[in-house]
Amino acid sequence: MKSSLEVFFKPRNIAIIGATPTKGKLGNVIFEVLRGKFKGNIYPINPKYQKIDGIECYPTVKDVPEDVDMAVIVVPAPIVPEVVKHCVDKGVKGVIIISSGFSEIGPEGAEREKKLIEIIKGSGTRIIGPNCLGVYDAYTGVDTWFLPEDRMARPPKGYIAIVSQSGALAAAMLDWAARMGVGIAKAISIGNKADVDEADLMEYLVEDSDVRVIAIYLEGLRPGTGQKFVEVARRITKKKPVIVLKAGKTKKGTKAVASHTGSLAGAYQIYASAFKQAGVIEASSVLDLFDMARALATQPIPKGRKVAVITDGGGMGVMATDALESLGLILPETPKDVKNRLRNKLVPFAALGNPIDVTGSVIDEHYVVAFEEVLKSDAFDMVMGIFLMQPPLLTEKLPDKIIEVLKKYRTKPVVAVSFGGSKLTLKLIKKLEENGIPVYEIPERAARALWAMAYYSEIRELNE
Amino acid sequence: MKSSLEVFFKPRNIAIIGATPTKGKLGNVIFEVLRGKFKGNIYPINPKYQKIDGIECYPTVKDVPEDVDMAVIVVPAPIVPEVVKHCVDKGVKGVIIISSGFSEIGPEGAEREKKLIEIIKGSGTRIIGPNCLGVYDAYTGVDTWFLPEDRMARPPKGYIAIVSQSGALAAAMLDWAARMGVGIAKAISIGNKADVDEADLMEYLVEDSDVRVIAIYLEGLRPGTGQKFVEVARRITKKKPVIVLKAGKTKKGTKAVASHTGSLAGAYQIYASAFKQAGVIEASSVLDLFDMARALATQPIPKGRKVAVITDGGGMGVMATDALESLGLILPETPKDVKNRLRNKLVPFAALGNPIDVTGSVIDEHYVVAFEEVLKSDAFDMVMGIFLMQPPLLTEKLPDKIIEVLKKYRTKPVVAVSFGGSKLTLKLIKKLEENGIPVYEIPERAARALWAMAYYSEIRELNE
Repeated sequence: MKSSLEVFFKPRNIAIIGATPTKGKLGNVIFEVLRGKFKGNIYPINPKYQKIDGIECYPTVKDVPEDVDMAVIVVPAPIVPEVVKHCVDKGVKGVIIISSGFSEIGPEGAEREKKLIEIIKGSGTRIIGPNCLGVYDAYTGVDTWFLPEDRMARPPKGYIAIVSQSGALAAAMLDWAARMGVGIAKAISIGNKADVDEADLMEYLVEDSDVRVIAIYLEGLRPGTGQKFVEVARRITKKKPVIVLKAGKTKKGTKAVASHTGSLAGAYQIYASAFKQAGVIEASSVLDLFDMARALATQPIPKGRKVAVITDGGGMGVMATDALESLGLILPETPKDVKNRLRNKLVPFAALGNPIDVTGSVIDEHYVVAFEEVLKSDAFDMVMGIFLMQPPLLTEKLPDKIIEVLKKYRTKPVVAVSFGGSKLTLKLIKKLEENGIPVYEIPERAARALWAMAYYSEIRELNE
Repeated sequence: MKSSLEVFFKPRNIAIIGATPTKGKLGNVIFEVLRGKFKGNIYPINPKYQKIDGIECYPTVKDVPEDVDMAVIVVPAPIVPEVVKHCVDKGVKGVIIISSGFSEIGPEGAEREKKLIEIIKGSGTRIIGPNCLGVYDAYTGVDTWFLPEDRMARPPKGYIAIVSQSGALAAAMLDWAARMGVGIAKAISIGNKADVDEADLMEYLVEDSDVRVIAIYLEGLRPGTGQKFVEVARRITKKKPVIVLKAGKTKKGTKAVASHTGSLAGAYQIYASAFKQAGVIEASSVLDLFDMARALATQPIPKGRKVAVITDGGGMGVMATDALESLGLILPETPKDVKNRLRNKLVPFAALGNPIDVTGSVIDEHYVVAFEEVLKSDAFDMVMGIFLMQPPLLTEKLPDKIIEVLKKYRTKPVVAVSFGGSKLTLKLIKKLEENGIPVYEIPERAARALWAMAYYSEIRELNE
């Protein structure tokens, strides 16, 4: 059965209700952005114009001569119910309401929002919003985000789906991902979530083959939807990892949520235990969210919690050890046979325990040998490779050599750490990232990514 | 009285014992680096050569025709005691021993290291190292780090001093700082610290007018020097902030320290309480160390813990609130009179409590007005400004306007947050940083920086 949400991501055509030729206005930016990348027909709707930029404009969506799959609404709040009614009459399946002036402004707006739900009742029409940025789909070109490229760059195609209660934050996230080269599949700004909410989107995204990990920014669930969220998430997390960044954890934070989205952030402890119950991974910041998502989107699922650390900087190795152990991950001692083989191939003063410290006298081949050994050994489920590129004998060929050995033996998650900034470091980061190895600045962040993968692996087994 | 360590940073001349014309060798890299930037005389010392690259070379340091202030030693370990003896005989005041092969390799090396101390006893000669990278001074051009620019870029001049037990980590830190534009005054890699240790350097750096904050990477203090560290730090932190990143906190981490620097990391709790007693600020990662150091190096000392948050993204405001409250900082409600003035100047749906949310409808002037009000108000000791640059009406003139208002009213610490990546965001970050406002990617990191400043302000008062 096709999901009722599919139309938001793969519409055959899109009507823009409130389209306008006036540059800089929302109804124009959305029109321009969509025209530049969406392949299907676009229908500007506005009774004031006959044509916009040479494209036929209709007084209402009902006047469009073919069936309309999706509509984006950018008219003032008081007119929204009327145009939503038009959409229902026309049989439009997906309506994104960008306009604000609903429950976020108080009782009057809440009344108006309630009316929307009454209008779509029993109709088969679904609503995203109001008070949102809508849908960004890197694969189909649906992009209702009214922000031009110079303010919000669009990230490369990837496997992460973002669902956000805050439009501003989601926009900043896409802009950041674009700069960092982090691949995004879809982003949905759900605003007041009058109809479509996090649970609905999880149900859709879990079946979406472009998506490998679902990342959610949440301030508060709508009253009465907590049980639904937990039930759906519990089911979804068996198939795909879900990461939630919950804002409003402290007393003051909860108050700030109330004045932002009007959500009831409630007692954070209730959320935290619901997340645990549902197998959801909790992020501690927006960077932490991306750190974990990047690993979950690119790495295989680990068999367990046992990590091998390979480093050329002893200090970084110590910090990695502290971070991993604090998170409950395990650093087993390197097995004897592995040690024996390494002893003959690394410098005599290399540390062979775990971390394996190839030292500042490292040459490229030492890293290759060490990776080969830990990837082959049953003693380790995951690998953290720390590459400080300052040692004088390392060459710019190192990343290619590492990628080669990973391709040969790769069945375990591998993450990398590199701290620095000169040519060799930047080249290594770029090469590894291009080949699907997430690179982090510090071992503490890489450790969080490994933890998320180990945790998710356990979740999947527990939730069977 | 002039410190006996001054000669390491402001020598009139430098002898390089073990200098060589062979490209790529340590004794050549150091010679080339110093020749390129150090203004005083350089004396290569090597019995094998008469001249190196056209510069007169001497068989021993004793043969140099003038007094020698400082010597860098890069000869093999077994010869080091002999050349150190030459230095003492010649009256060299500062000796940096780069060579490894001392206490870090076991009993034989420890014996050799002990000999060094016996040789300098009562002589007025001080030793940094052995097994270290030595001294980097951005102001005087002393640079004994045997890493060429393409592996370790040199950061811009600044106010942060780095003291590190790990050479590899310190090198990566300088390389990273160079890329990020973080200003560094000095970096000292102290290796085995046979003579000069963290406490000695704190004593020197506290009197150094180029240094505003001392950042230390520590695995373990030498046995018997704990009391000295605490006493000195307690005295120093009255005048300048000291941040320590302690590695080896967990059981496994402590073990990793033993195989790295051979230090006794000891029970972390003992260190943690010593740091507290000494008024030292503890960092949780190398990024956290820089996050706090950047703020302490550029901002005035706050009067208290009361923070105003100004944001155009409600979600970021909520996360800032959570982070600040978790760290024990205070977000007082915006005073009535301030609210009244803001009400007339911001958009009607702006949130006027704290965070002050100027919303996505923000124009540059709203930020200016909000900053002006919180900088003038006694209700706040510090300010976190969150700038998401996606909102359509913000212009590229915003950073200049913010800097102007800060110059007018600036008596409080101000830190900024910007998450994104397109032109406007990058321009804002660059402009603010150039004008001494540290910018962080996420509010959680900015909150740590504010916490460090508030904590330091209390330390200074407590330690009076």
